[in-house]
Amino acid sequence: MLNRAIVTICLPLLNKKQIHIRYTTQEIQHNVDNDLILLGHGSGGRLSHQLLDDLIIPLLSGTATAGQNDAALLDPVTGQLAYTTDSFVVDPIFFPGGTIGSLAVHGTVNDLAMMGARPLWLSVGLILEEGFSKTDLKRILEDIRQAADQAGVRIVTGDTKVVPRGKADKIFITTSGIGVIDHGISIHGANAQPGDAIIINGTIGDHGIAVMAGREGLNVSTAIRSDSAALNGLVAEILTEAGDSLHVLRDPTRGGVATTIKEIAAQSAVSITLTEENLPVDPAVRGVCSILGLDPLFVANEGKLLAFVAADVAERVLTRIRQHPLGAKAAIIGQVSAGEAGRVRMETAIGGTRAVEMLAGEQLPRIC
Amino acid sequence: MLNRAIVTICLPLLNKKQIHIRYTTQEIQHNVDNDLILLGHGSGGRLSHQLLDDLIIPLLSGTATAGQNDAALLDPVTGQLAYTTDSFVVDPIFFPGGTIGSLAVHGTVNDLAMMGARPLWLSVGLILEEGFSKTDLKRILEDIRQAADQAGVRIVTGDTKVVPRGKADKIFITTSGIGVIDHGISIHGANAQPGDAIIINGTIGDHGIAVMAGREGLNVSTAIRSDSAALNGLVAEILTEAGDSLHVLRDPTRGGVATTIKEIAAQSAVSITLTEENLPVDPAVRGVCSILGLDPLFVANEGKLLAFVAADVAERVLTRIRQHPLGAKAAIIGQVSAGEAGRVRMETAIGGTRAVEMLAGEQLPRIC
Repeated sequence: MLNRAIVTICLPLLNKKQIHIRYTTQEIQHNVDNDLILLGHGSGGRLSHQLLDDLIIPLLSGTATAGQNDAALLDPVTGQLAYTTDSFVVDPIFFPGGTIGSLAVHGTVNDLAMMGARPLWLSVGLILEEGFSKTDLKRILEDIRQAADQAGVRIVTGDTKVVPRGKADKIFITTSGIGVIDHGISIHGANAQPGDAIIINGTIGDHGIAVMAGREGLNVSTAIRSDSAALNGLVAEILTEAGDSLHVLRDPTRGGVATTIKEIAAQSAVSITLTEENLPVDPAVRGVCSILGLDPLFVANEGKLLAFVAADVAERVLTRIRQHPLGAKAAIIGQVSAGEAGRVRMETAIGGTRAVEMLAGEQLPRIC
Repeated sequence: MLNRAIVTICLPLLNKKQIHIRYTTQEIQHNVDNDLILLGHGSGGRLSHQLLDDLIIPLLSGTATAGQNDAALLDPVTGQLAYTTDSFVVDPIFFPGGTIGSLAVHGTVNDLAMMGARPLWLSVGLILEEGFSKTDLKRILEDIRQAADQAGVRIVTGDTKVVPRGKADKIFITTSGIGVIDHGISIHGANAQPGDAIIINGTIGDHGIAVMAGREGLNVSTAIRSDSAALNGLVAEILTEAGDSLHVLRDPTRGGVATTIKEIAAQSAVSITLTEENLPVDPAVRGVCSILGLDPLFVANEGKLLAFVAADVAERVLTRIRQHPLGAKAAIIGQVSAGEAGRVRMETAIGGTRAVEMLAGEQLPRIC
């Protein structure tokens, strides 16, 4: 409390209020009594060290190795490295089927897996709002640890900042990740080839609708759970089965399947045709979407991948995916042709076709 | 606007207000007319692609290579890899001597340099507040680019999220970085050895006081500039001069020199004595600190390092540091002894000694 007192004392000199005047001794005591996050927990000083020693390092223990140094040292690996980052601002932070913690691990693990990389190491940057509950923080850290353990990745470095109440919304998490590509197969968005079949590993739109249901308190929420999951295990199966007949992997997160397919059609300069009746959609998700006027094709997923594979291996790969716990409802949902570059068409259930475009604006804000 | 309209239409069904009701057509038009960030810029859809194509990729061009894939592929390197991350929430985002953009590059570059690593690649995660000015974003991105170019690192992957107005404060940036250690010298916080001299490369507290002056609108602000700078070039010089006589490098950021020295004394289980009269302090910084009752020893730096080197090379290393643009005011400020583990004492200018402790709470919030 010593330094806080100093700051309070110097106020009249500065003739300012914004940050300093918000604090009364009672307010500070309230935060301390209720075990809430204080601004001082982000100061780099004694409170920061306490938060690290009491909460963050023990909870991530076994995965956290950076200790008190400025950077973590990584074990040597053979192969090409892949590197990615994602910030997570999902609202609510706890939703059916996951939390911002598990999501932050799954999202970054999946970005690496979509390059055909084996995810190895993660970093975790936390931005906390002053007054955030340490109990909630604990739950989120436990979720980060569990998700990392399940995905087989290690959290090796991190950072924690605290901003004043009202300057952030509870907690934002930015993860980055490093993986290794130790096979010779080229997998990227510009590699879709005419004739490729497009496989998805299950139902679409579950994550977006689960988060919205959690946020809006819809009664339907119990029936719908986020599909948030680490896909690296499934990718390993696909790679084994398809070999270099696997051309593109992409996880249809923000913007949904439609936006992702549009991106790949443009990057690979091909046409893509989707078959509406083959698109797996959970009935509860379809129901909520129909009430709200949303199209599940544009709704975010966090445990789905689109695999573009040569036609001659498509059925074999589909069978293999269906044997995986994350692939029971897998389906072939479309195919690639050499037509107009970037064009995506949907064969509708009633026998027509329509153009598929990218999500234009914001359908569901803060979905990840 | 299409999807926004859909969201608005579905409101009565949800019987909710928080996010949706805040929007009127006029408000949206205001954001569009004034070229402000919209929620849709973080959706992953068409607006996100526009922001990437129009602003982010061109401005980081030459450093950005991740393109539209989920992860960047890194060139092969020989040596041990170091990996770090930091989140930046500095307020104000523009301050004398830097911006949140340059700071986010310098901070992560320096964390790598303090391990004796040569920084190679950075990731950048942006969390933007809806309504944030695209002009300000442009300026920050230009600063990121310039700082990365100067430090010789490449920004290879990134992510952008947007949260509703009032749910973040303008912009938060999380950078992570990868560097390579291609020498055999062990440099870490537990490696301080009795007899070591402690060298700092210049004046202390400049960053913290510059940011506070910027925030509070102090008149003194013009005289004080942040020291924010990339230290990897200076570290290379020190390594060349000191070789394996260099034992510890650490940048005294949050918590200042006092907290950093305390950390190292504990990690290395040694005693440290600082000499007050040798501590370089800019007169303007000293003046502001004395008015406000702050001790520059606890104030953050962003372009300073503490180098622990064997006594017999200390003068040579000091000379070499002073020849570097970031080291003109370098000084030997203390020494290591085998006394009580973790104890730090200050020999004061008037001939006494006092104990030095860690910063207890928050001296200056949101300093980085």
